[in-house]
Amino acid sequence: MKDVQKEQDTRNIQIDRVGVKGVSYPVVLMDRDNKTQSTIADVSMSVMLPREYRGTHMSRFIETLEEYHGRVSPSNLGSFTKRLCEKLNASESSVSFAFPYYFRKKAPVSGIESFSKCDVVLEASYEAGNFDMIIGIGLNVQTLCPCSKEISRYGAHNQRALVSLKVRCEGLVWFEELIAIIEASASAPLYTLLKREDEKYITEHSYENPRFVEDVIRELAVMLDSEPRILWYKANVTSSESIHNHDAFAEIERRRS
Amino acid sequence: MKDVQKEQDTRNIQIDRVGVKGVSYPVVLMDRDNKTQSTIADVSMSVMLPREYRGTHMSRFIETLEEYHGRVSPSNLGSFTKRLCEKLNASESSVSFAFPYYFRKKAPVSGIESFSKCDVVLEASYEAGNFDMIIGIGLNVQTLCPCSKEISRYGAHNQRALVSLKVRCEGLVWFEELIAIIEASASAPLYTLLKREDEKYITEHSYENPRFVEDVIRELAVMLDSEPRILWYKANVTSSESIHNHDAFAEIERRRS
Amino acid sequence: MKDVQKEQDTRNIQIDRVGVKGVSYPVVLMDRDNKTQSTIADVSMSVMLPREYRGTHMSRFIETLEEYHGRVSPSNLGSFTKRLCEKLNASESSVSFAFPYYFRKKAPVSGIESFSKCDVVLEASYEAGNFDMIIGIGLNVQTLCPCSKEISRYGAHNQRALVSLKVRCEGLVWFEELIAIIEASASAPLYTLLKREDEKYITEHSYENPRFVEDVIRELAVMLDSEPRILWYKANVTSSESIHNHDAFAEIERRRS
Amino acid sequence: MKDVQKEQDTRNIQIDRVGVKGVSYPVVLMDRDNKTQSTIADVSMSVMLPREYRGTHMSRFIETLEEYHGRVSPSNLGSFTKRLCEKLNASESSVSFAFPYYFRKKAPVSGIESFSKCDVVLEASYEAGNFDMIIGIGLNVQTLCPCSKEISRYGAHNQRALVSLKVRCEGLVWFEELIAIIEASASAPLYTLLKREDEKYITEHSYENPRFVEDVIRELAVMLDSEPRILWYKANVTSSESIHNHDAFAEIERRRS
Repeated sequence: MKDVQKEQDTRNIQIDRVGVKGVSYPVVLMDRDNKTQSTIADVSMSVMLPREYRGTHMSRFIETLEEYHGRVSPSNLGSFTKRLCEKLNASESSVSFAFPYYFRKKAPVSGIESFSKCDVVLEASYEAGNFDMIIGIGLNVQTLCPCSKEISRYGAHNQRALVSLKVRCEGLVWFEELIAIIEASASAPLYTLLKREDEKYITEHSYENPRFVEDVIRELAVMLDSEPRILWYKANVTSSESIHNHDAFAEIERRRS
Repeated sequence: MKDVQKEQDTRNIQIDRVGVKGVSYPVVLMDRDNKTQSTIADVSMSVMLPREYRGTHMSRFIETLEEYHGRVSPSNLGSFTKRLCEKLNASESSVSFAFPYYFRKKAPVSGIESFSKCDVVLEASYEAGNFDMIIGIGLNVQTLCPCSKEISRYGAHNQRALVSLKVRCEGLVWFEELIAIIEASASAPLYTLLKREDEKYITEHSYENPRFVEDVIRELAVMLDSEPRILWYKANVTSSESIHNHDAFAEIERRRS
Repeated sequence: MKDVQKEQDTRNIQIDRVGVKGVSYPVVLMDRDNKTQSTIADVSMSVMLPREYRGTHMSRFIETLEEYHGRVSPSNLGSFTKRLCEKLNASESSVSFAFPYYFRKKAPVSGIESFSKCDVVLEASYEAGNFDMIIGIGLNVQTLCPCSKEISRYGAHNQRALVSLKVRCEGLVWFEELIAIIEASASAPLYTLLKREDEKYITEHSYENPRFVEDVIRELAVMLDSEPRILWYKANVTSSESIHNHDAFAEIERRRS
Repeated sequence: MKDVQKEQDTRNIQIDRVGVKGVSYPVVLMDRDNKTQSTIADVSMSVMLPREYRGTHMSRFIETLEEYHGRVSPSNLGSFTKRLCEKLNASESSVSFAFPYYFRKKAPVSGIESFSKCDVVLEASYEAGNFDMIIGIGLNVQTLCPCSKEISRYGAHNQRALVSLKVRCEGLVWFEELIAIIEASASAPLYTLLKREDEKYITEHSYENPRFVEDVIRELAVMLDSEPRILWYKANVTSSESIHNHDAFAEIERRRS
């Protein structure tokens, strides 16, 4: 059978990335507390395609995923991206694994436990012997408006806000460490299971810690700037303003100088 | 050229609905204040297919849309669905036009104006001489938690909530009338443009009108039950709880007895 | 602390459903081949609220999920919904668990294996001693247009189509049985991992089995009508037509007479 | 009333972008053939916030939108972004207007007309006297697999593919010019309204023009490289493979050297 992908291409154009995306696959990942966690990932995998070849061999991406039995973690993506280069005869490869990550969280007063979720994305690439990885965390928090609190006789509008943080690190940084930083930057964290004494505590705690999106992003920046393992970060805070039908946002990107 | 759709089908199965959906089309609709409003609709159109035919003629749905020059309103969908039956040689037809609808809203204190949006859906069907239509409105509002207010020394969690209301009417009911009912059922309406004096007003107003999703749905029900033009309604209130990462909801369906 | 939810309500309106939705939770489910499968679910849980109470106790829904350790299957939802009624002091309860379900599939010629995904939803309710459950499967397949094949000198447009099937059964019906029925109704099934010999086989197989959405829905109906364990079904086929920017669809609902 | 936003901030952190997003607003834009087109936009607007201020004044973004009466076009965004800087007392501003854009398209044989849709995004920024703008077009097309065609006795899998193209230009480039380039790169364009003779033509035309995502991206690159008004582009082709449940993609970014 003819291998059309292997045909010579005469258009003389190298393609930055060719691959598959939207691959929904069960994965098993390393978790600080329980060692492994089964979840499901939206997977993207690609390689650079040199000018002389017409196409890449898409099935080999899935074969590589099968070779690794869906095991992914920040510590094996170097091996994974290198393996893609070998199998696809490429000099550069990139992957992205996006998945929900669950962790147990205790309610602040009752201590009752339940699962909380954040969205993790691991973006890794391999090129000429160099491996690069970005860890992304998307986590919902609460923001309470300092202006609304200040000018009103009582109450203050508050709402869910999504904090999206991407970091490039030196050494290992646990998802839980990034989650803790994000939650500390907001007016209050969210919970899945709260009893009334917890609801009272969070309502008051949030009222005592009003934060604009500008405040949240600066609190994040202060904490991230003081963490020597973080070489680069990009953060976005988007607040679903409860007095508006649109969102307020702030974003910042910094490289350690 | 052979007409495959016209072939006889021997499987002896009548199909409830066959048609097109996800048709994105510019439409012009009637608006109480400005006479017409240009918007864009997600359109679905279908017919019942008798057991003896293999297929329907999908292009005729789009031709009908073109015949009407994209003009839709609660008052011409009877004609539209009847025309579909004629063109497609069908005894029953159904359509759905879903579109964003914009209206000017004044901020409560400053009086400054801007556009607000709701999501409208018109669902109409024609069968054996009978026309039926449902008007749906999806509108975001604010809810402030009565429990959180009651048990906390200060503050109260609040958030955006989506109210989805569908009604079957006798006589004309303007979108604006349904919008007014929805906004009256909540702790506060949302606005696109607010100055500080407005933000103060809404924060306090919402604190003075705490509403569970249970309260919102009951307030809606009380108003809808007292409106003689409304023969049937189905309402859902879904609140993006700002202390949780999930939503609270309430729903109700009633037919005038 | 005051229990605001327990307050008497004077509006005299019973609410059909009050509860939580959008709860993202890790779940473990029964799987025909491997006994259990870890996945993640979008969970909705609600109860009927009598006219005399102001609100329900939302935290008890999550507590029930915790009590079951996230274990769900068609066979324990009767117990689950009954338990919700007890804990929430309600006469009716409803739940919905929607999750991706993965199964191994062999490529048709090479026999190479990979995971395929379908979207499952289990909708269950308990009312006055009666338990009801609907199993829903959403699965992508390929459709190849019989008209395009017939009128063209070569080729035929084909595309992904989503089949959504909901059934109410007597006795146990495995997800895999419904998946097999859905795949048999289409021009061809989809695969995650195919080698060239498989691609050739599927391309030719699909060309030999052209199917309108009307054909797919009728093939489904013929198979479902002949299965005595299926008491009711509702099916929708939506094809992302590759010559159009919109979809073609067909749908049917039947109750065993 | 206190202006909390104007407070001095001591954290010493400048924020790259602060503003609003998810603003759904009716807009009027310039159109090559009809002069103006009413559509609806998803609007994002932001400014850089210096280290010394606690917050920005979010309402002024919406006021600016109102000042322009929702009129947007590639030619007035320079004025718009400059105006944002003035009103918000900022040295840098950014906006994004994303909207569906409709154009009339004739079927290839019958000549029958209907609306086609593409998704346009205009991203503009103003900084220190410099204005920058990117025009983005997202358009669905058809791709037919060259490998599937080559190895199969008959047929070839084909499907919808989304081409996303962003360009930075010198001088005016009409949306219609970019649309024409995108459609020429694919196996075939999509249509909303086709009669049987058109369907035959497109089926055969596509079969005669098989294209991998790699081919589409290279055809695009060849055309864009030869257009002197285009200074930079980034293109992505994502094909909803009709034999797989995931997508194939290719992407490329080039700056005129």
